[in-house]
This record gives sequence, C-alpha cells and structure tokens, in this order.
Amino acid sequence: MRRIKLQLAYDGSSFHGWQVQPGLPTIQGVIEKVVSEIEGAPVDVAASGRTDAGVHAIGQVAAFSIGNPIPAANLRRAMNRLLPPAVRVVSAEEVAADFHPRFDAKAKTYEYRIVREEVCSPFEWPFVHHYPYPLEEERMEHLARVLEGEHDFTVFAAADESDAEGRSKVRTVFSSSVERGGGRLVYRVRGSGFLKHMVRNIVGTLIEAGRGNLEELSALPAKSGPTAPAKGLFLIGVEY
Amino acid sequence: MRRIKLQLAYDGSSFHGWQVQPGLPTIQGVIEKVVSEIEGAPVDVAASGRTDAGVHAIGQVAAFSIGNPIPAANLRRAMNRLLPPAVRVVSAEEVAADFHPRFDAKAKTYEYRIVREEVCSPFEWPFVHHYPYPLEEERMEHLARVLEGEHDFTVFAAADESDAEGRSKVRTVFSSSVERGGGRLVYRVRGSGFLKHMVRNIVGTLIEAGRGNLEELSALPAKSGPTAPAKGLFLIGVEY
Repeated sequence: MRRIKLQLAYDGSSFHGWQVQPGLPTIQGVIEKVVSEIEGAPVDVAASGRTDAGVHAIGQVAAFSIGNPIPAANLRRAMNRLLPPAVRVVSAEEVAADFHPRFDAKAKTYEYRIVREEVCSPFEWPFVHHYPYPLEEERMEHLARVLEGEHDFTVFAAADESDAEGRSKVRTVFSSSVERGGGRLVYRVRGSGFLKHMVRNIVGTLIEAGRGNLEELSALPAKSGPTAPAKGLFLIGVEY
Repeated sequence: MRRIKLQLAYDGSSFHGWQVQPGLPTIQGVIEKVVSEIEGAPVDVAASGRTDAGVHAIGQVAAFSIGNPIPAANLRRAMNRLLPPAVRVVSAEEVAADFHPRFDAKAKTYEYRIVREEVCSPFEWPFVHHYPYPLEEERMEHLARVLEGEHDFTVFAAADESDAEGRSKVRTVFSSSVERGGGRLVYRVRGSGFLKHMVRNIVGTLIEAGRGNLEELSALPAKSGPTAPAKGLFLIGVEY
C-alpha cells in the first residue's frame, strides 16, 4: 500500500463540515467517494482535523492508503475531474506509510475575515462575516495579542467539548493578531492545536471587546463572546 | 414622483438573468419586489440592459420612479436590508425625472475572466471560466484589438437576435483588450452598446484564435466561436 498526502481547498458553504454524516454532503464524504472509485475498493481518508459546517479551507491536509500505482500528479488530476468544483486537490504526494495528518501536525493556521464596509460585495459575502457596526479595533488588536502563549483555552471551547472530562484544554498559540485595512479586518492565529469552535469563539470575544463589552483586556476573559459565523473562517495551512 | 438611479452589484449564479420571468428568480424580480414593498404599490424598474442568466454585475445601473419621500441613502440601506445578499445596492441617488438607464447610456464596460491555472480555486470558480488548456495568448491580444472601432457585429449576435430584421447591428467598440498575468486572462471591452451574447461570443472567438483555429486575425471573423460560459462575465459599469 502507498500512503498519499493531499492538500485540499474547499468552499464549505454547501457542506455539512469535514466529517462523514449519513445522507448529508460532507467534504470527507466526497473525497472518500472519489478515492474509493479510483481504488475500486472502500478507502478511509483522514484529515488534520474536522472543519465545522460552512467553514472553508485553503490548506486542509488529508491522507489515505491505496494499492493503485497511479502517479501522485495523475491522481490529483483524476480526483479533480471527479470532485465537485467546490472541492479541489491542490497537491498530492506520496509520503511515509506512517504519516498521519492529525497526529503528526505541529501547527495549524486559521484566518477569520470580517468586512467592515457598509455594503458587502456579493462576491465576498459567502466567504466573510459582514460586520459594519462600530468597533474599537485597537481593543481587538490588544486582546488578540494576549492570547499568545500556552493557556488553558476552556473558555473558548464548544459547550459539548467542555463537558468531555479528562482531556486537556491547554494549547499553545504561537501567534494571534488582527490585521486591518481596506475595509477588512482579518484575525490570523497559528497554534499547536485548536479546540472545537475555539477560533470562532475567540473572534466572537474579540468583537465583544471591540464593542466595549469587555473591560479587562490583559488576560483571557472569564467568558466567551458568541460563536462567530462559520462562513468567515478559513483553515489556511497545517505544518508537519 | 421622484426618479431614483441605482448602481447594483450582483452574483448572477442563482438568477435567471435580469428580466422578470414568471416563477423564476431574476434580478429585476427581486429589485421590483423590494421597491414595491417600500413604495406600497407596484413599481417598474428599468436597467441599462438585460444581463443573461448567470452573468454578474459590479456596476449595473437601474432606475425607477416613486412617491415615497425617503432620502436616497436611507432607501439604499432599506433595500439592502430586504434584498438577498447576492444583490446589493451600491449607491442610490435622485436624478432628473426623464433619466432612462438604457436610452441615456453612452458607454458600457464588460469584463470576462478566465483562469488559466490547472487547478481553479473553489472561491473563484463561480466567477470565472476555467480554461487550463494551451492558448496562444498573443493571438488573442491581437484579435481583441482588431475589434476596436465601428463595425457591423452581426457575426457575434445571438442567433435569435440575428433573426430580428431591420435593427442595426452596427456598434462602436471604444476599447477591446486582453490583460494577462497571475494565471489569469481578462478580456475587457468598452463600447457604445452590445448585442445579445456579443461579449460571450467574442470571448469564444478569442479562445478559438488562441487555439489556432482562426487563421485570419486582421479583420472580424466570418463566424463566431462558441458562446463562452455566462459565469465569467461581469457588467463593470455604465457611463451616461
């Protein structure tokens, strides 16, 4: 068997997230269908992590094992012919048999895009959170920096993940920053790993800070702001 | 009655073009519904011209007459609240009572976007024609320039428009050029007016020229190439 590593880009708008769910369109579902068709047998595809329904990816990493001797570049072309245009294989390469996209990941980068202009372009709308209301953006920049380092991020975990006992919520955020300009606000975060809903909850909290609803900006807040909409979030890349 | 001029941007992907058609979603349909709701009476909305099903606009111009005294800026905001996110009122202003977006138009600009890279980004795919096959792009640049000036553009008219007798197919193209770079090829054309399917037929013909299927590049061709897909076409702006 050969081990294949893929870099995937997808428009998550019309998918129920990464993970296979019976009767619903998912990214893992369409990828497994296409790889299984090429292999002529069922193939399981693993990713660096699940993305939620509606979340996009520019650099999701996935891997699977096949017996088919097709060269990796041809496999990429064959997959792109069979996949819907909303899901693209950006690259495919053969890797060591023990490569695992989740367990071997050293860092992940996410980006969250907010449009601040009063009128949001219809061409951007599916890929941003449109928030044209007043925000003290300096406060958001400040709080973003405070999240850097090793912290227990329980406050930003999804309610169902918080309930799971015994699993550490400590993660290391290597960089966390807000970039402003051109009527856009982009939150960019690179870390060792992320809890479910963590980036969207951080963005919801940054918005609360920008609205002046958070007094204390020098430490992690005691509670999270609302989960920001999925469609502004992009998984940018995974490092190994 | 007050006359209102709108600049509209729309993602044409899920609309059956500009013109109202019973039982089908159209741009004119959603605009008239919203303006009529604000006016409290049926309002007709005219545009600079029809766009075909699937064609996008950044600067379509439309106009209508209402009795409602709402200031134009508030009207824009009210319309954007009621419209689907795929259709945006970029600006609204009060104009002379006799302003007509079609009859008063002096020039229109269209852009047609082609992605040349092997893998087309899923975020661009709805808004471009993906054509990753070999093209002699210099030949396309050359033919694009030849279209400038006053010509009878019958060869590029839609079959049903060609059949209409007695209407001149002479139009003036002020500029016609191909811009290349970054894995993209953009055809940009500015003219006094355009026949139905004219820009998409020009693009189909430019592609034929690029494929080497057109020998003669120093005059309008004797027949048109295939109509290029609607989703690569944008109405950029209308001048008055």
